Amino acid sequence: MDIQGVLQSFDADLVKTDTFMREVFRNHTPLLSKVLDYVLSSGGKRFRPLLLLISAAMFGCQSERRFALAAVVELIHTATLLHDDVIDEASLRRNQESANKKWGNAVSVLSGDFLLSQALVIMTKNGDAEIVHLAATAIGEMAEGEILQLTKCGRADSSPEDYFRIIAGKTAALTAAACGIGARIGQAPPQVVESFVTIGKHIGMAFQLVDDALDYNAETAAWGKEAHKDLNEGKLTLPLLHTLKKATNAEKEFITNSIAAGGIADIKELLVLVEKYNGVAYTMDVARSYLDTVTKMLEAYEASMARDALLAIAQYALTRKQ
Amino acid sequence: MDIQGVLQSFDADLVKTDTFMREVFRNHTPLLSKVLDYVLSSGGKRFRPLLLLISAAMFGCQSERRFALAAVVELIHTATLLHDDVIDEASLRRNQESANKKWGNAVSVLSGDFLLSQALVIMTKNGDAEIVHLAATAIGEMAEGEILQLTKCGRADSSPEDYFRIIAGKTAALTAAACGIGARIGQAPPQVVESFVTIGKHIGMAFQLVDDALDYNAETAAWGKEAHKDLNEGKLTLPLLHTLKKATNAEKEFITNSIAAGGIADIKELLVLVEKYNGVAYTMDVARSYLDTVTKMLEAYEASMARDALLAIAQYALTRKQ
Repeated sequence: MDIQGVLQSFDADLVKTDTFMREVFRNHTPLLSKVLDYVLSSGGKRFRPLLLLISAAMFGCQSERRFALAAVVELIHTATLLHDDVIDEASLRRNQESANKKWGNAVSVLSGDFLLSQALVIMTKNGDAEIVHLAATAIGEMAEGEILQLTKCGRADSSPEDYFRIIAGKTAALTAAACGIGARIGQAPPQVVESFVTIGKHIGMAFQLVDDALDYNAETAAWGKEAHKDLNEGKLTLPLLHTLKKATNAEKEFITNSIAAGGIADIKELLVLVEKYNGVAYTMDVARSYLDTVTKMLEAYEASMARDALLAIAQYALTRKQ
Repeated sequence: MDIQGVLQSFDADLVKTDTFMREVFRNHTPLLSKVLDYVLSSGGKRFRPLLLLISAAMFGCQSERRFALAAVVELIHTATLLHDDVIDEASLRRNQESANKKWGNAVSVLSGDFLLSQALVIMTKNGDAEIVHLAATAIGEMAEGEILQLTKCGRADSSPEDYFRIIAGKTAALTAAACGIGARIGQAPPQVVESFVTIGKHIGMAFQLVDDALDYNAETAAWGKEAHKDLNEGKLTLPLLHTLKKATNAEKEFITNSIAAGGIADIKELLVLVEKYNGVAYTMDVARSYLDTVTKMLEAYEASMARDALLAIAQYALTRKQ
C-alpha cells in the first residue's frame, strides 16, 4: 500500500471526521465562524486524524466516537497553528494569508483558545478521562516545546539535544496522542496504548526531521510556506546544527555570526556548508532510524490493512518531497 | 460573617491551593518558570479558588482533591489573563508591568497555553470527566465572550444584550464552573451541581457589573489598573450603554462620535452624561438583582459556615470599593 492507497482506504472516515469538525463552529459568533471556516478549509493534510483512525482500525474499532476524536486532534492542531502564527508573526500559511495577518493577533489567539476548548468539550462529553489525559499532556508538551524553541531562537549555542526536545514537543507530542487515543478507543490494553504513544511519537519525530531537511531546499510555491523559513526566523534545525558541529573553527565563526545577524542574508554560503557536511542527509538518516523503530514495533502485530497503512505512512514520511 | 471572616476561615485552604499551584511550574523550561512565578505572585485575589472551596465545603467535602481543583480554576484564570493582555495590548496588570510588555506576545500566548494544558493534566489525572467538562465548557465560553467583545469594540451600536453575553462569557463562565466543580467534588447530586453552576454564574455577573461600575470612578493607584480602562479600549459597558439608551438624540450623537473617535478624549463630558442618567446606579441595581437570586437560592440550604461565607461574598461583591 502507498500513501494514495491509505488516503483512499480512509477517505470515507476522513469525510466523516470533517463533517463532525464543521459542526463545531456552527451557530457561533459570526467572526469566529468565519475564521474557523477559513483555517479549516485551507487544505491541511489531516495527518493527525489519519493516524488516529488507522490506530483505531488496528484494533478493529467500529465506534462512531472515533470520528469525534479524530476531529479533536485536528482541532488541537489547528488551534496551535493559529497561536504559532501569532508567535512567529507569520504572514503565510498553507499558501494563503495567515489568520493573524488577516484578522490580527487578538482574533487568532482567541480563536485558538476556542478551538482548544471545543476539543476538550467534545472529549469530555460522556468521555474517557484517559483520553483527555493523553490530549492534555500533548497540549502541555507542545506549549513547552514552543517556549524552548523561542528561548533558543537565533542562538548558535543551542544544541542538537535542545532541538530534539523542541520537536518532541511541537510535533511528536500530538502525533503520539493521536496514535495513543486511537489505540485506546480501539480498547487496546494500557501497555499497548503506551506503545502506540511511542509509535506516534516516532512518526512525529521523523516527519519533523524530514520537514526540517526539506526546508533547506523547498520552494515557496510547492511547499505552501516560505523557503528557508526556519533559518529566516532564526530557528536552528538539525541540518545546520549538524553542520555547526562538524565545521572548522573559521566556518563555525562564520555560521555563528550569520545566525546572530539573522542568517538569511548569507543563505547561499550557509547552504554550501550544509551540503559540505551532509547536514540534510544526516537529518534524513536520523528520521530513517525513528521509522525503523516504528516498523519493528509494528511487526509484532498481525498483518492487516491498518498495519499496512501505518507502514505506508512511515514510508511516505521519508520519501515525500513536500 | 464579612469578607475578612471568609478569608480567615479559608486561609489554610487557600495556602494549600497555592502550594499545589506552585508545584505545577517546577522543573520546567527556566523562562516558563520565571513567567509563571511572576504572574502567580502578582497578588491575584484567588477569588475563583475561594468560590470552589466554599462550594465544596457546603457539602462537607474533606477530599484533598479540592485543593488541586481550586488550583485548576486559578490556573485557567491566569491563562486567560495572559492571553487577554496580548489581546488588549495592556501594559499594566495588577499594578505591575504586564507579562506581554515584559516578555512579548509570544511568551504570553505560550505560557497561557501551557497553564491551560496543566490545568487539564491535573484534572484528568485520575479525574472525573464531568469536572473536566465543566471546566472545558467554561474555557470555550470565555473565548467566545472575548471574541464577541472584540467584534463590538468601539461600536456604539452594541446593545445591552451583547454586553450581557460578553460578561457571561468572560467572567461568569469560570465562576460558574468554580461553584459547579466545588459542588461536584462535594458529591452533590447532578441537579444540585447544576444549581451551583447558576449560583456561580450570578455571582460572576454581579462581580463584573460592579467592576464595570467602578471603572467609571476608580483611580489607577487604588485599583491596580488604569482608570476608565474600558472606555479607553473602546469597550462599552453597562453604565454607558444605559446612558446611551436614555440620552436625547443630540447626546446620543455626541456619545456615538466620542466612542468612534476613541472615547477617552471626551471623558469628562461622558462622565457628566453617565451621572445625569444614573448609569452607575443602574448598573449596581442590576448587580444587586443577580445577588438577590443567589441569596434566595442559598436559603434553600441549611445554615452553615460555608453558606454564610457564600452570602458574605455576595454581600462583598456589592459593597467593595475596588
